[in-house]
Amino acid sequence: MIQALDKSFIPVLQEKIDNLNKPKGSLGRIESLALQIGLIQHTLTPKLCHPCHILFGGDHGIEREGVSVSPREVTWQQMINFGRGGGGVNMFCRQHGFKLHVVDVGVDYDFDHEKCPHIIDRKIAHGTRNFLHEPAMTQEEYERALTVGAEMVDKCHAEGCNIISFGEMGIANTSPSSIWMHLFLGIPLDKCVGAGAGLNDEGIRHKYEVLSSSLLTFRNSLTEHDSSLFTLHSSFPLSYFGGYEMVAAIGGMLRAAEHGMVVIVDGFIMTACMLAASRIDKNVMDYAVFGHCGDESGHKMMLDGMGAQPLLSLGLRLGEGTGAICAYPILQSAVNMINEMDNFQHAEITKYF
Amino acid sequence: MIQALDKSFIPVLQEKIDNLNKPKGSLGRIESLALQIGLIQHTLTPKLCHPCHILFGGDHGIEREGVSVSPREVTWQQMINFGRGGGGVNMFCRQHGFKLHVVDVGVDYDFDHEKCPHIIDRKIAHGTRNFLHEPAMTQEEYERALTVGAEMVDKCHAEGCNIISFGEMGIANTSPSSIWMHLFLGIPLDKCVGAGAGLNDEGIRHKYEVLSSSLLTFRNSLTEHDSSLFTLHSSFPLSYFGGYEMVAAIGGMLRAAEHGMVVIVDGFIMTACMLAASRIDKNVMDYAVFGHCGDESGHKMMLDGMGAQPLLSLGLRLGEGTGAICAYPILQSAVNMINEMDNFQHAEITKYF
Repeated sequence: MIQALDKSFIPVLQEKIDNLNKPKGSLGRIESLALQIGLIQHTLTPKLCHPCHILFGGDHGIEREGVSVSPREVTWQQMINFGRGGGGVNMFCRQHGFKLHVVDVGVDYDFDHEKCPHIIDRKIAHGTRNFLHEPAMTQEEYERALTVGAEMVDKCHAEGCNIISFGEMGIANTSPSSIWMHLFLGIPLDKCVGAGAGLNDEGIRHKYEVLSSSLLTFRNSLTEHDSSLFTLHSSFPLSYFGGYEMVAAIGGMLRAAEHGMVVIVDGFIMTACMLAASRIDKNVMDYAVFGHCGDESGHKMMLDGMGAQPLLSLGLRLGEGTGAICAYPILQSAVNMINEMDNFQHAEITKYF
Repeated sequence: MIQALDKSFIPVLQEKIDNLNKPKGSLGRIESLALQIGLIQHTLTPKLCHPCHILFGGDHGIEREGVSVSPREVTWQQMINFGRGGGGVNMFCRQHGFKLHVVDVGVDYDFDHEKCPHIIDRKIAHGTRNFLHEPAMTQEEYERALTVGAEMVDKCHAEGCNIISFGEMGIANTSPSSIWMHLFLGIPLDKCVGAGAGLNDEGIRHKYEVLSSSLLTFRNSLTEHDSSLFTLHSSFPLSYFGGYEMVAAIGGMLRAAEHGMVVIVDGFIMTACMLAASRIDKNVMDYAVFGHCGDESGHKMMLDGMGAQPLLSLGLRLGEGTGAICAYPILQSAVNMINEMDNFQHAEITKYF
C-alpha cells in the first residue's frame, strides 16, 4: 500500500523555497524537484542517502521473431560486462556514487557464479515464452518476479537507501514496452513502435506486424470473464507480455514507493514499467522523478500521456538505467538548494523577483 | 590568438568512441561532448582538472531607465552574499567542486574589504554610463575590463584549471545582451527583448522602447568613418553597450580558449558574451559548451543563431553562471566514458548496434 503524499504540506515547503535568496521560481525544475522530494520525505530538510541502482536482466521469447537488431546473446554478455564494471551503467554509478546491484531474473544463460560473483542469481527461467503464441510467463512466475524486485529494494532500504533507480538489460524489451504503452494509454500501436537499438524502416514494419499479431492472439485468448478481469486487474497484460526483468522493476518501484523512497525513472522501458506499476497503484507516480527523455520514437508521447516531465534530453538510448543516474546531480542540487541556500531575511538582501 | 581545432583528429577520436561497448551513438550528446573535449585537448584520454567559476559583478547606467524589475542595490547585496557562500552559485560550486572567484569589476558600491575578503577588487568604475545617452564605457575602460577577465583566467590556468565557466551579477544586464543579439545576429529587436528577472508586459514594452532609442543614438553617433570601423572592429558595440562584468567575461572566454581550456557557457547574458567574443575571434566557439537554455525569451533564438545546442533546459533563470555549473556532470560523464568504458574487443561482446 503506497501512501498518497500529504498535499497540505505543500504551502509550508513552498514558503521555504520562495524565501531562499533568488528571484521566485528562478531555479525552475530544481525548485519543483525540491518540493516533490520534500513532500515525499515530509520534511523541510530532505536528504538523499545511499543511492542505489538495481539492474535486472532477462531474455524475451519474442526476440525469436526478429523484432530486435541485436541478438539475444548480447543480454548475457552485457550482464557479465556489468558484473565486471565495464559498462556504461558502471561508469555512471561510479561517477554519482550509486551502489549497483546486477540481478539475473531471467537471462537465457547459465552464469559461472564463481567467475561472475557480482551477478545476483534470482533466475526464474531462461527467458520468457514467445508472446506471439502464448503468455510470456505464468501468474506464479509473475508474482515471483515482482517479489524479486521488492526484496532487492527491501535490502537497499535496510542499508539506508532512500533514492533508487532501476535499469534493465533484455534484448527485445522495447516490444512489451510498446504494447503496454498502447494498452494502457490507448495510443495507436504504430505510434508506440520504434527503432529500439537501431532497426531500419523495414525492421520497424516487421516489429509492428509481430506486435500487432501478438495483440490479436492476446485479445482472442481473453474470454468474457477474462475481459472483465482485465479491466479490474491490469496485471494480466503485465504477465502476458512482460519480461522478468521488467516485472521485477515494477515490483521494485512499487515497494520503493511503499518505503517512501524517491524513484528515478530511466528511458522508454523503465517508463513503460512505471506506467504498468501505476496501473497497480496509481500513487506510485508521486514518488517518480523522470530522468531522461530518450530518442526512442514514442517515449515523449508516453511521458506526455503520463503527465511526466523528464529532466534531461541528451539523446541517450543505451538503456541500463543510464538516463536515470545521469539526472541524479539535479536531484542533489534540489536538496542542496533547500538546505544550503541562505534566505532573504538572513542575507539582508532586498527581496527581488 | 585562438588555435583552430585540428579536425584531422576527429576520425581517430570517433573510432575510439564507436568501439566502446554500447550501440554506436547510444550515449547521444555525451558522445559528441567527448569528441569535442578530446579535440580541444587533442588526446584520446581527455581530463577535466580543477574546474573554476569566475563571477564578475558590475552595474549598468541603463538601470536608471527602469529597464529592470530589480533595483541596482541587489548587485552589491548579492556580491556580498556570494562572498559569504550563501548564493545559488555557491551551492552549485560546492556540489560540483568548482573553485569560485567573485570579482568586482564595476559594482556601484564600496565594499568593506575587511568584511568581504572573498570579493576580489578589480573595480574599474562605479557602474557604466547610461547608454541611452552616451557610450557605457571608454575604449580604455573596455580594454581594462578585457584584461581583468584575461588575467583572472591566467591565474586559474596557472593553478592547473582546464575547464572554466563564467557568471555575472549585474542588474539590467539583459539589456546590453539583447542589443548585442540584435546587432550581431540581425534578429529584430523586439524578438531579443524579454522579461529579464520578471518584468511584466508593460515593463517589457518600456524596455524595448529604451533599447530602441539607445540604438538610434548609437547609430546617429556613428560617422561614416565609424560605420566602416564598426564592420571591421565589432568591439565598438561592446564598449558602447556592455557592462564591465560582461566585457571581463568576454576577455576571460577569449583567454581561456587561447589556453585550450573548455569554456562552459551559462544562460542569456553569458551566451551574449560568447556571441560578442566570437566576433573578436570566431575560433572561441570551438571551445564552448553551452550548459543551459533558459526561459529568457530569445535565448533559444540566440543559441540557434549561433548554431549552439545547450545541454540542459531546466527553466533556470537565476544567472550567476548556475546553468553552466549545473551541466558540469555531463561533461564529466563524457570524459569518464572515453576513459573508463570497456571496448567490444576487450569485453568479448558481440558488437551490436
